[in-house]
Amino acid sequence: MKRKSGTTKKSLVAFGELLLRLDARGHERFVQSESFVARYTGGEANVAASLSQWGIDTFAVSKVPDHEIGQACVNYLRRFNINTDWVLRGPGRLGILYVEAGASQRPSKVIYDRDHSCFRGIRRNEVDWNVILRGKDWFHFTGTAPALGSNVLAVLKDGLRAARRRGVTVSFDCNYRSALWSRDEAARVLESLMEYVDVFIGTHHDARTLFGIDAEPSESAAQLRRRFGFRCVAYTLREGANASVNRFAGLLCDARGCDVSRAYDMQMVDRIGGGDAYSGGLIYALLMRWPRRESVEFAAAAGCLKHSIAGDFNLVSLEEVQQLATTGESGEVQR
Amino acid sequence: MKRKSGTTKKSLVAFGELLLRLDARGHERFVQSESFVARYTGGEANVAASLSQWGIDTFAVSKVPDHEIGQACVNYLRRFNINTDWVLRGPGRLGILYVEAGASQRPSKVIYDRDHSCFRGIRRNEVDWNVILRGKDWFHFTGTAPALGSNVLAVLKDGLRAARRRGVTVSFDCNYRSALWSRDEAARVLESLMEYVDVFIGTHHDARTLFGIDAEPSESAAQLRRRFGFRCVAYTLREGANASVNRFAGLLCDARGCDVSRAYDMQMVDRIGGGDAYSGGLIYALLMRWPRRESVEFAAAAGCLKHSIAGDFNLVSLEEVQQLATTGESGEVQR
Amino acid sequence: MKRKSGTTKKSLVAFGELLLRLDARGHERFVQSESFVARYTGGEANVAASLSQWGIDTFAVSKVPDHEIGQACVNYLRRFNINTDWVLRGPGRLGILYVEAGASQRPSKVIYDRDHSCFRGIRRNEVDWNVILRGKDWFHFTGTAPALGSNVLAVLKDGLRAARRRGVTVSFDCNYRSALWSRDEAARVLESLMEYVDVFIGTHHDARTLFGIDAEPSESAAQLRRRFGFRCVAYTLREGANASVNRFAGLLCDARGCDVSRAYDMQMVDRIGGGDAYSGGLIYALLMRWPRRESVEFAAAAGCLKHSIAGDFNLVSLEEVQQLATTGESGEVQR
Amino acid sequence: MKRKSGTTKKSLVAFGELLLRLDARGHERFVQSESFVARYTGGEANVAASLSQWGIDTFAVSKVPDHEIGQACVNYLRRFNINTDWVLRGPGRLGILYVEAGASQRPSKVIYDRDHSCFRGIRRNEVDWNVILRGKDWFHFTGTAPALGSNVLAVLKDGLRAARRRGVTVSFDCNYRSALWSRDEAARVLESLMEYVDVFIGTHHDARTLFGIDAEPSESAAQLRRRFGFRCVAYTLREGANASVNRFAGLLCDARGCDVSRAYDMQMVDRIGGGDAYSGGLIYALLMRWPRRESVEFAAAAGCLKHSIAGDFNLVSLEEVQQLATTGESGEVQR
Amino acid sequence: MKRKSGTTKKSLVAFGELLLRLDARGHERFVQSESFVARYTGGEANVAASLSQWGIDTFAVSKVPDHEIGQACVNYLRRFNINTDWVLRGPGRLGILYVEAGASQRPSKVIYDRDHSCFRGIRRNEVDWNVILRGKDWFHFTGTAPALGSNVLAVLKDGLRAARRRGVTVSFDCNYRSALWSRDEAARVLESLMEYVDVFIGTHHDARTLFGIDAEPSESAAQLRRRFGFRCVAYTLREGANASVNRFAGLLCDARGCDVSRAYDMQMVDRIGGGDAYSGGLIYALLMRWPRRESVEFAAAAGCLKHSIAGDFNLVSLEEVQQLATTGESGEVQR
Amino acid sequence: MKRKSGTTKKSLVAFGELLLRLDARGHERFVQSESFVARYTGGEANVAASLSQWGIDTFAVSKVPDHEIGQACVNYLRRFNINTDWVLRGPGRLGILYVEAGASQRPSKVIYDRDHSCFRGIRRNEVDWNVILRGKDWFHFTGTAPALGSNVLAVLKDGLRAARRRGVTVSFDCNYRSALWSRDEAARVLESLMEYVDVFIGTHHDARTLFGIDAEPSESAAQLRRRFGFRCVAYTLREGANASVNRFAGLLCDARGCDVSRAYDMQMVDRIGGGDAYSGGLIYALLMRWPRRESVEFAAAAGCLKHSIAGDFNLVSLEEVQQLATTGESGEVQR
Repeated sequence: MKRKSGTTKKSLVAFGELLLRLDARGHERFVQSESFVARYTGGEANVAASLSQWGIDTFAVSKVPDHEIGQACVNYLRRFNINTDWVLRGPGRLGILYVEAGASQRPSKVIYDRDHSCFRGIRRNEVDWNVILRGKDWFHFTGTAPALGSNVLAVLKDGLRAARRRGVTVSFDCNYRSALWSRDEAARVLESLMEYVDVFIGTHHDARTLFGIDAEPSESAAQLRRRFGFRCVAYTLREGANASVNRFAGLLCDARGCDVSRAYDMQMVDRIGGGDAYSGGLIYALLMRWPRRESVEFAAAAGCLKHSIAGDFNLVSLEEVQQLATTGESGEVQR
Repeated sequence: MKRKSGTTKKSLVAFGELLLRLDARGHERFVQSESFVARYTGGEANVAASLSQWGIDTFAVSKVPDHEIGQACVNYLRRFNINTDWVLRGPGRLGILYVEAGASQRPSKVIYDRDHSCFRGIRRNEVDWNVILRGKDWFHFTGTAPALGSNVLAVLKDGLRAARRRGVTVSFDCNYRSALWSRDEAARVLESLMEYVDVFIGTHHDARTLFGIDAEPSESAAQLRRRFGFRCVAYTLREGANASVNRFAGLLCDARGCDVSRAYDMQMVDRIGGGDAYSGGLIYALLMRWPRRESVEFAAAAGCLKHSIAGDFNLVSLEEVQQLATTGESGEVQR
Repeated sequence: MKRKSGTTKKSLVAFGELLLRLDARGHERFVQSESFVARYTGGEANVAASLSQWGIDTFAVSKVPDHEIGQACVNYLRRFNINTDWVLRGPGRLGILYVEAGASQRPSKVIYDRDHSCFRGIRRNEVDWNVILRGKDWFHFTGTAPALGSNVLAVLKDGLRAARRRGVTVSFDCNYRSALWSRDEAARVLESLMEYVDVFIGTHHDARTLFGIDAEPSESAAQLRRRFGFRCVAYTLREGANASVNRFAGLLCDARGCDVSRAYDMQMVDRIGGGDAYSGGLIYALLMRWPRRESVEFAAAAGCLKHSIAGDFNLVSLEEVQQLATTGESGEVQR
Repeated sequence: MKRKSGTTKKSLVAFGELLLRLDARGHERFVQSESFVARYTGGEANVAASLSQWGIDTFAVSKVPDHEIGQACVNYLRRFNINTDWVLRGPGRLGILYVEAGASQRPSKVIYDRDHSCFRGIRRNEVDWNVILRGKDWFHFTGTAPALGSNVLAVLKDGLRAARRRGVTVSFDCNYRSALWSRDEAARVLESLMEYVDVFIGTHHDARTLFGIDAEPSESAAQLRRRFGFRCVAYTLREGANASVNRFAGLLCDARGCDVSRAYDMQMVDRIGGGDAYSGGLIYALLMRWPRRESVEFAAAAGCLKHSIAGDFNLVSLEEVQQLATTGESGEVQR
Repeated sequence: MKRKSGTTKKSLVAFGELLLRLDARGHERFVQSESFVARYTGGEANVAASLSQWGIDTFAVSKVPDHEIGQACVNYLRRFNINTDWVLRGPGRLGILYVEAGASQRPSKVIYDRDHSCFRGIRRNEVDWNVILRGKDWFHFTGTAPALGSNVLAVLKDGLRAARRRGVTVSFDCNYRSALWSRDEAARVLESLMEYVDVFIGTHHDARTLFGIDAEPSESAAQLRRRFGFRCVAYTLREGANASVNRFAGLLCDARGCDVSRAYDMQMVDRIGGGDAYSGGLIYALLMRWPRRESVEFAAAAGCLKHSIAGDFNLVSLEEVQQLATTGESGEVQR
Repeated sequence: MKRKSGTTKKSLVAFGELLLRLDARGHERFVQSESFVARYTGGEANVAASLSQWGIDTFAVSKVPDHEIGQACVNYLRRFNINTDWVLRGPGRLGILYVEAGASQRPSKVIYDRDHSCFRGIRRNEVDWNVILRGKDWFHFTGTAPALGSNVLAVLKDGLRAARRRGVTVSFDCNYRSALWSRDEAARVLESLMEYVDVFIGTHHDARTLFGIDAEPSESAAQLRRRFGFRCVAYTLREGANASVNRFAGLLCDARGCDVSRAYDMQMVDRIGGGDAYSGGLIYALLMRWPRRESVEFAAAAGCLKHSIAGDFNLVSLEEVQQLATTGESGEVQR
């Protein structure tokens, strides 16, 4: 990209696992598949990918196998301009998620094969957070990383403490996966991490499941924010007619109140990754210090657009998100 | 599949022609096609495929060419666990149907090239129904087989008589195709077979065309059931907004009354084969001796889900059909 | 095609540029594309393709590079029965348009790479309009050709004058592209050509942008017709819910009044080329001397069906368009 | 193509069946195939395709089904500039050949499914040979057509008689297929047609099988020529190391002697259709009245190049064949 | 397959792990891959697949995950007629091997990701060898299974003991993989199993590495046979010019001497799986009680043909192998 | 990649045009192509790609269109770890080369469509060579850039002067393309640039065509080196049996003598880009200060391996090249 001097680029560090995503083609079922589309993903890298499209300097901190599949994963991040200097290499495997796209009344399906991954073997002395976080603006993690065992949790805690020390803003996407750990263990571990979090992203279902807050979304977000002293709480609001058509919106609450975004009725290309795209949009808006309403509209538009794109990276331009966020309309063919 | 001891598995025998289905890719028109997707099908085998997914022992009785395309057809059935010990081999060709998927206002199109098939040359002494039907629970055929000439009709009648003798339940999917024979001939031949049929599956259009019963669906089904003394009559109810969106439901009538299932608004992946999937669902429910309402809901859910799957085999699990049949909702991404 | 003696086939000559259209696959974004689908197009050739499917003799007048990509373009026209005897060859390049299909809230995108094309170098002495137009019924051009420089404009004017001399009906599809030239220049040049035009095709947006007529569609068409003395004016009427769903209709005004067609709600396969398909339908109806209402219904049905077909050629049969134009319904699977 | 005035283009009429060729992908075996590549073919059309690439006016005389697969076949010929005005339409099917590409020690495989084709129903009164052959230079047929039943044979004989009357040169490619008819019947029927033939193309195996001439190639060709009074006899000489590597050459004998072409060692892309390409090259050379040696070198080079191209049409330019025929070398990358 | 009464079919039981094989497309490198071809494999299942093509009843004993990828694996075996009644289901993952096809001077590459598989968790009480081996003729295993941990080893030993008790012939393909275990451990464990083995298959490199026998192939095989009292020892002999061209032969020694097969120079489609195909051919020949020379020629021809087929299953017919084994030539196109 | 401290990474700057390479699939001819594989290339970027795989810091200096196709090009470089900070954006088009892979006797074909590119509009004030070359080790350009007009030439000369000032080594790959400019103009312009060049790469054909040196390779290289005072001259030596099989070697001469590498007989996957890969290998060896013989062997091995990889980037590891360079053998499957 053409060097622009004199401006200070914002920056984000994303810590989490990287995975190979293998998609059955089109609407094929797994038992029909003769081949898989291969893309790489990770809840945190997905957020970085969003931001790197919009001019933010992004840095992935992770660990992948020291073989060619690991290299292909690194190259995938590089391709979309995520800095991979801190993607470590080591023995072990790259976790996989198999994805089958649903259609109409048939829901999408994800099979995880991510145990025993190389990333789970990451060690505290491999990650120099003081170097990594120096001069950075934002640190992002999700509820998946703490579920991946004590090694990862220890490295994460180091990172959170370093971020706190350096005044780096911390966002957390709850993203609770019952396949990874029990509700109780998740609640216990995540609760211990909330003190480091400035921006909480999730759903009111997460708030009920993990923190026992049973309220409609706005009230839930407000309670949650107060309980942990978050700077703000952002929820996605989703109503699924079926696997082909969905309704999607966002909610953002801070100390002064809440805003709900426009709701989008979407014909879906890819059901997966909308939450990460929403997080990406939100973080961008907050980095830009936009007002609450503009922020949640931008985040929701980003999340909405992701559903029209295959793969987990939200490959949309700033202008495209802004066009939708501002007007709620997609406009005509662009020539 | 893991051996389960102590349970008696139900079983179904399906007699009918097997064909090669060649699909233009995506929404391509035939005149655009540079390649065809190749799958195998047959109205009766499609029903068997449904049931074999759900743990029923299924047996195809048919005849295919003794060359590699015939072998590929047999392998396709085996892949989805249909027993092919009674798929005979012989000289001749495998019938073909070319399929072009419609979209929006453009309807789907099927070109049949099924004349002179190997199956039409099947001979009575090749099929030992006494061996085949021994210990079996169900026999299924459709209105296509009797249209394929005297050889096939003779073998079919042998099968129906053997089924009667052995107390095997017989289901019939009317599936009238004007391309195969005239209305008058179809009416004459099919009428002569109805005495062997326990479960009639079709539409009220079939009842009007073939049996002169001109009434709204429930009344039509009731009249039809009484005329032939069927144990029950099941109709599919379909309203086609266009080639991309359809509405689908089922109706089931027995001696004690009728039930109409929930209606599904579907975004279509494949318009073909929904009727066979409905038959499969219905037969499963009747084999399980489920109540009428549960049965028609299960059948309709099975038929609905098929429209989200490419190819004629309804590759859905029992749990997936039950989830939809019970709730009418497809639920969220399954992880 | 089987020789039909004793009937006089109608004929159309289409003058304009031919281009290579490179489509990203499925719903891929350009930055995801590892391959492009290659088809050939041209606003005028697209109209010819429609008419050649319906039995009209069509002739493309154009110029392409004398290398294999140029030859592939010529072959593409031949494949769909457009006469290419007057597609000249010469040095230079074939223009390209890159197309990315939108989905849901994400609009489709077209990147033009058509400057410096071989066609722009066409010279007046290469095109013998007296030979080409001899015995022909119709001449079609669009607002793109005059934007391509003085060479093309000079050849076009020769053609228009020859058409006038020989009593060949002339249709013009406005198709204003701000990427090709400014509004002012377009207005000036196009205005000078309107005296040759019998049938004007466009939108009321075109009428406002280029000719300053700011009125609702019917009034706009009537004014436009009167201003230039057109035999008739046809507009497309389009409302875009989003990139996946659109509403489409037509309006046709002649000296005796206006008719608006049925409006179609479409699930889109390809957003591009609907206008050309509408032009094709309209010209066919006018060549057949059908009444105004039948004409606009046929044109709108043709335009509607195109949205269900990938690529710019409207590969539908006369019967398919008539079925939709007459009933407004797509009907069931055709077997 | 740019009009060239003042030159008289040569012309060829090819009479024979058209078929759909379905290829397993790459080196897949039939039982692995999930899709087939679809191309159209016919021993005679293949020859026409060669010649149309080199500027000869070519005309296919045939009959295909009046549905979209038949239309796609016609379009395929048009695409490569074969005139299809005399490709009739009617009821019935389009014959199919399934092709599996061999590799190394595994031979290629062809499964024919061509019985009961629409073409076999062609009737004498449908084909007006006097119109078709008026002003034409060459008539080509192969040994396949006479094997397709009395209808086809009657039409063929009409054509041969008309060619004789009009002084049109007749070439015949023997192409004996034991799958179509017995050796005895083939010998009897073909022998009766040889009086109309000027140019015989085949192999010395054909000469032995059908005409009992058991000699090495040159001697065999000489004997055959004398027996039937052919103007010339051309053989292909093939040695197959295996399915990936072959050796190919040509032999041409006329009244004054024989020439054997250079032999080519080929890495094969497609094993099928080399003979038709050889015929095409030979006929071109004879139409151009080139000397015997130049003719057989051109024919052999054409046949050789075909093995590097998938599908049965030899899509090479005159310059490409001449370059190889002259030098025996393929030269470097052409930029 | 058509029932054949009165003949006793031979049968084979294959115990070993099943894996998902993901191939980069064509000659793509891993870092270029945007998709993977998905097939299923396993050194022992590959042998079963060979034999099932040739009419042997084959039974896979294994364990796969109880999710859809596991099911797809089972279906793959069923498709090629391997009985899967003893493929257990359970928690865990399906091992993967990533394959990149080499070309010319670039070797093929395999990345294993098979740790922590479901199969490694198989338990002795899940496998009832007495039921499985009842009435069976042959038991096959490879050197991979014993490397997969104590669970697998224990089940294997049970099977070997049961085979011994029941007089089932046991074959062993050495197939030493240094990635799975050390040379020392392999030598120790495998040596302990050799007492159960009747037929040893491997290479003289294996004999040197594991058993310290350093001699040219024939001598090595003879020594090895004597050391363990094998009924016979079969080696593959391979010389690799490069990744595109290889030379392949077989050696078979029994108590009365040795035979070396014809050597094949092969253009390679798939480098992987030739050894399993050789084992399959050998076992078939021994089951048929063919003489030593015929046996090794059949085995070598089977191994050779596999290199022309993508994927690990040797999908060739008995006739195809016999044609090559007998003549050493692949013959012409088969029509 | 994990930061390694304490080592000084070498660095290379490559200045030249970037292009979109569109490949017909497999062995398809252009007139058969329904889609093109899209990759990005550039003679200089290809060299950078080689080096970035082996741990050199590489920087592309170029200019691409400010639309998504330009962005996709930038992403392609990033993916393979080429720094794109100095890839400028601007109006205009991205040049294209269409590539058709030859086979056997049919040569590969390249059609250039690279006129009027965005890169040709690059301006001197856009490129700050002092910043770019600061601390860099190597500057690479080819004979293509000076052919692209005065803008590019001026920027190039600035770069060469800056390199000279800063002591950056300069390599030049002659790569004469007659399609771009005449021999005379090329000779005149290139001669004027030779004073800046340290390492000359080309062929003895180039030396004859451009500099009138007509001698066998070693003598030619020696003369050329002396004439311009190059540090060394490297030639590729290629003998093309045909499009499927080629022989390839390298020659390197410096002041003390010449070495010729081992010659490789290659089965070709991609004929294009071997020269760039050879340049990459050579530059790496020279950067590492390896002896002359080791250098030319490494360069030739790199060039050889490229022919087994589709696309212009030589995606091989250092170990892979070294293995081949050292042994001349590709070795067995790597597991």
